[in-house]
Amino acid sequence: MKEFNLVCPVPREDDARVLLAHGGGGKLTERLIESVFLPAFRNEALAARHDGAVLEIGSQRLAFTTDSYVVRPLVFPGGNIGDLAVFGTVNDLAMCGARPLYLSAGFILEEGLEMATLRLVVESMRAAAARAGVTLVTGDTKVVDKGKGDGIFLNTSGIGVVEAPTPITPASVTPGDTVIISGDLGRHGVAILSVREGLLFDSPITSDAAPLWEPVEALIKAGIPVHCLRDLTRGGLASAMNEIAKTRGVEIRLDEAAIPLEEAVKGACEILGLDPLYVANEGRFAAFVPSAEAGRALEVLHTCEVSRGAVLAGEVVAGVAGLVTLRSRIGGTRVLDMLSGEQLPRIC
Amino acid sequence: MKEFNLVCPVPREDDARVLLAHGGGGKLTERLIESVFLPAFRNEALAARHDGAVLEIGSQRLAFTTDSYVVRPLVFPGGNIGDLAVFGTVNDLAMCGARPLYLSAGFILEEGLEMATLRLVVESMRAAAARAGVTLVTGDTKVVDKGKGDGIFLNTSGIGVVEAPTPITPASVTPGDTVIISGDLGRHGVAILSVREGLLFDSPITSDAAPLWEPVEALIKAGIPVHCLRDLTRGGLASAMNEIAKTRGVEIRLDEAAIPLEEAVKGACEILGLDPLYVANEGRFAAFVPSAEAGRALEVLHTCEVSRGAVLAGEVVAGVAGLVTLRSRIGGTRVLDMLSGEQLPRIC
Repeated sequence: MKEFNLVCPVPREDDARVLLAHGGGGKLTERLIESVFLPAFRNEALAARHDGAVLEIGSQRLAFTTDSYVVRPLVFPGGNIGDLAVFGTVNDLAMCGARPLYLSAGFILEEGLEMATLRLVVESMRAAAARAGVTLVTGDTKVVDKGKGDGIFLNTSGIGVVEAPTPITPASVTPGDTVIISGDLGRHGVAILSVREGLLFDSPITSDAAPLWEPVEALIKAGIPVHCLRDLTRGGLASAMNEIAKTRGVEIRLDEAAIPLEEAVKGACEILGLDPLYVANEGRFAAFVPSAEAGRALEVLHTCEVSRGAVLAGEVVAGVAGLVTLRSRIGGTRVLDMLSGEQLPRIC
Repeated sequence: MKEFNLVCPVPREDDARVLLAHGGGGKLTERLIESVFLPAFRNEALAARHDGAVLEIGSQRLAFTTDSYVVRPLVFPGGNIGDLAVFGTVNDLAMCGARPLYLSAGFILEEGLEMATLRLVVESMRAAAARAGVTLVTGDTKVVDKGKGDGIFLNTSGIGVVEAPTPITPASVTPGDTVIISGDLGRHGVAILSVREGLLFDSPITSDAAPLWEPVEALIKAGIPVHCLRDLTRGGLASAMNEIAKTRGVEIRLDEAAIPLEEAVKGACEILGLDPLYVANEGRFAAFVPSAEAGRALEVLHTCEVSRGAVLAGEVVAGVAGLVTLRSRIGGTRVLDMLSGEQLPRIC
């Protein structure tokens, strides 16, 4: 396992141009953050490397987050860029233990976009915001020349009020924590890719995009001392676990047999040559809780529709700092590294 | 002046596709907001039609705003997309009477972008944030395929704490208010266009991009009862005045002789066929204050470098609701309407 330490954390001089993989959530994204963004903006909130920043303003603890959405195609089985942009940002707030309250929306439209498409997306945002209990309070629209955009790019930023009594952040993860996964994995990425590749399945695979504050609120209200939450978006479970293991300097051990995958997703991943542990989800998260509370946390999660399929999937050990391993069904162990390249560009 | 009432405020059915002018800040932008966005998201904060939303969270009054930047070229005389994105969003908060505190940054990069360009932009953002006293606390990066973007698109959203004791919003504008303009107009738009058109001037015209909280804070601290503030970005002075006159149902009368224009800007506008009152600024704003306080407000503004050129430029009267007029140097009066089309695409 020493090979892990050969991964070079310093920026390489040959990164002269931006590659698709710089946006993929893997190693190149990490390198871009560490070599370009962090040196310029270094501060406590950014250094926490979480889904959002937690800010003290007066007596309030607020969470603040932003995400741009460039998903292709704009409409896919189970959703479109509009509800994706609402749920994605709402979920980043929820992962900070914050009740999502307010959203902004920044549209970058390509000249020639059909107004009917824009209306569809906006209507989906309205419905998604209502479902997630957030209000869209401010917005902006820019239009770029035909051929200089791709239909719609959409940024949503969000503000929430932190309701968790203790910090939910990678820094709180501790050896002895149990890793809970909130349901089956891989549906969002496979749904997108199946449209792009023109694949037909007996039963269509739909995106899992959904708002996640409800189960987080349930955990907090039940008094579960949640250490960290992370939604399993770009780069999937494997990338999320790597980020947390590296940030916190712990080892995370996952159990392959415990990780739920729908048969259709498993089959599609085999056909497409994808590892479902690296495929993006938009309605799934991992929760780190003390092992003594894991059973009760699971019971709480099973009371919410969106996390009815939650499972105990692994554990945090002191082990090798930054390492993520997967115990396979046949008893072997393999390292789950960060993606080096780009598996699925523009998945969100 | 009755012709003004012939402008059709309801959506036209033939708006089947998005046009560049939908992003220009003129009539088509207004129609897009009124026919697509407001019906879906109608709420008090959006309905205020201000540069940002003012939100009550617990005991705090916060301002929240978002803007996407698609300026072309990325680097222009006096700035680049990075400092523009910081100042633009900081200024939207200042226009709500709020001290800018925190920013997010969402990058949409085009595959193949030179990393050196990204580093330049990020370094400018760092310097601009330091100058404006804000901290960039959360971010996101997406990469789109070559030919599906245009180098860098950048969204910044911001949070500030409202320090003005009374609401600074179009709804507070009142007949009897004086309109103050904080300095000479048109430099940002002309600086951008001169690069695009390859124009050479004896002395180059540079963008006026600058942070505006300092003069706003000075007005608040001096106890000036500011009714409304508006930065004069896309669509320039004329569009900003039209938006406020329409939202509040008042008439705004401006005095052409009072409006400061640099000779070089005036000359460039003549060559380029532009009306400088419609050209974007990125470091200028209009302030609406009771006429009895206008002289004192002007004195306060003159103490700040960025508003040293502030002038009294007009007045609010009951008059014709929604009308903006300009009294010319030779004594005539003309209507300053919203732009119908797009004067300068991708100016910010």
